Amino acid sequence: MTVTYNRVALIGLGLIASSMAHAMRAGGFSGEIVGHAKSAETRDIAFEIGFCDQVFATAAEAVQGADLVVLAVPVGAMSSVAAEIGPHLKSGATVTDVGSVKQAVIAAVAPHIPADVNFIPGHPMAGTEYSGPRAGFATLYRNRWWLLTPNAETDLAALASLRSFLEGLGAKVDTMDAAHHDLVLAVVSHTPHLIAYTMVGVADHLAQVSNSEVIQYSATGFRDFTRIAASDPTMWRDVFLTNREAVLDVLGRFTEELFALQRAIRMGDGPLLHEYFTRTREIRRGIIEAGQDTSAPDFGRVAAAQKPAGE
Amino acid sequence: MTVTYNRVALIGLGLIASSMAHAMRAGGFSGEIVGHAKSAETRDIAFEIGFCDQVFATAAEAVQGADLVVLAVPVGAMSSVAAEIGPHLKSGATVTDVGSVKQAVIAAVAPHIPADVNFIPGHPMAGTEYSGPRAGFATLYRNRWWLLTPNAETDLAALASLRSFLEGLGAKVDTMDAAHHDLVLAVVSHTPHLIAYTMVGVADHLAQVSNSEVIQYSATGFRDFTRIAASDPTMWRDVFLTNREAVLDVLGRFTEELFALQRAIRMGDGPLLHEYFTRTREIRRGIIEAGQDTSAPDFGRVAAAQKPAGE
Repeated sequence: MTVTYNRVALIGLGLIASSMAHAMRAGGFSGEIVGHAKSAETRDIAFEIGFCDQVFATAAEAVQGADLVVLAVPVGAMSSVAAEIGPHLKSGATVTDVGSVKQAVIAAVAPHIPADVNFIPGHPMAGTEYSGPRAGFATLYRNRWWLLTPNAETDLAALASLRSFLEGLGAKVDTMDAAHHDLVLAVVSHTPHLIAYTMVGVADHLAQVSNSEVIQYSATGFRDFTRIAASDPTMWRDVFLTNREAVLDVLGRFTEELFALQRAIRMGDGPLLHEYFTRTREIRRGIIEAGQDTSAPDFGRVAAAQKPAGE
Repeated sequence: MTVTYNRVALIGLGLIASSMAHAMRAGGFSGEIVGHAKSAETRDIAFEIGFCDQVFATAAEAVQGADLVVLAVPVGAMSSVAAEIGPHLKSGATVTDVGSVKQAVIAAVAPHIPADVNFIPGHPMAGTEYSGPRAGFATLYRNRWWLLTPNAETDLAALASLRSFLEGLGAKVDTMDAAHHDLVLAVVSHTPHLIAYTMVGVADHLAQVSNSEVIQYSATGFRDFTRIAASDPTMWRDVFLTNREAVLDVLGRFTEELFALQRAIRMGDGPLLHEYFTRTREIRRGIIEAGQDTSAPDFGRVAAAQKPAGE
């Protein structure tokens, strides 16, 4: 890991930040890792696990002297954290964030960043259904995308340093426009999550089917939904509130499409259903060819046995 | 594997039947396995792989002298297959099926089964996104539910033999009423599959987001959807056409629920979203405690390394 940062400050010490710290150490990062979390309990756990060299009671203290500051708090907390650290940032430092939504975070953070500090918004496309400082592991980012949304004013040297640092964590780095990011994510992540939450909620309400049956027989489709629907509630609340327009747009399209299939079921239109399901299967094959998943018939569980943990 | 069957006939030689044959051999089944598939190519592949001792060109020939006949064809083909084999079934034999829907299969098959043959409908809750005779593997059923839907007239000795046989394949066997089965499956499997198909279709339509982007960045939620949406189109068309009432009922509830969440997003109702997402997370925890899934933070891919293939 060859990076230009001597001191990295992690603001927020949950799954994302703790995994970054573990990955930095595993990658041979020789600088100092400092951190801050709002909760005293989280700070104690982080200190106990030892993934930070120093843990501070305030974000303002944590960022002092840091070359890289990572805002790893829920999207809804970005604005107040940015306002607190703004006056304490080191000249020439880089600030990035890990929010799943980019336009809202930019609107919340950018006004608080001094002119001599580089703010480069980011989004690691990695996570698990677990949260908190104990949830982190060093390989979370390996071969996962880490999207950056710089703009025309972004310092190219600072961008190159951040990219190199993130690649050192194992991530694949790409850049895109912030608005486009938010639409792409509404399609591939935000709306699927909302749908999974909804389906799990429906199952819970159905009086004729007991919860124990739902739980017992959830071996197929539904199990993947519950996995998705178990993600951090605060993070997802903030995602939907801050990427509202794109999510509502995609949801509208989803409902139209679902009604067309529902009508086909009601009318007994077998050819329409078969054609539709054949097409979605092709899309899945495209994903396997793009290398985002494995084609092993057991959904990759065996193939993973030959790889390091977390891949 | 201690079973009373000397000869088992598999009608249809796709993922389900070929996995049964592999599991029977792996479990020490010493009898004869014979089979039939409509497609000559499938018959040739089954013979080449060797999971059947004999492969017949017609279902009528395949079932002759068989103690157990397994109907492993799409739900839409059950009626014609049952009509063909009915007159050729051995007295005292057991017929079962592997359809994902039970009431429609019973209506299609039962009228063709002679009075001296036991028809015990079944449904293995196991599968992958792959189909065909090459897709089978011996551990597909290990620790998976295999539901049977006997009725008041079912011969209890025949039921006990079938249960023992299926447990020999590694499955956990449970019995329930056919109508209740169809409702439970509409909730935990059929409707989630339809929703996944729909979401993958929406992504494919969205003009501002290229397919390559959808494919490239599908690392999160969407990837699980594409996995679900890649299942066999013929099987799923038949599921939706034959379990229509239950699926439409659950879909109606789903749409109501989705609209409530969509409204909360539009109105900016953060507390409602947070409360909802917290509740679905609890349901997920119930599933882990019920032993249907692993709590490993990487979704079970590492844990699988310590287990035999296919678990």
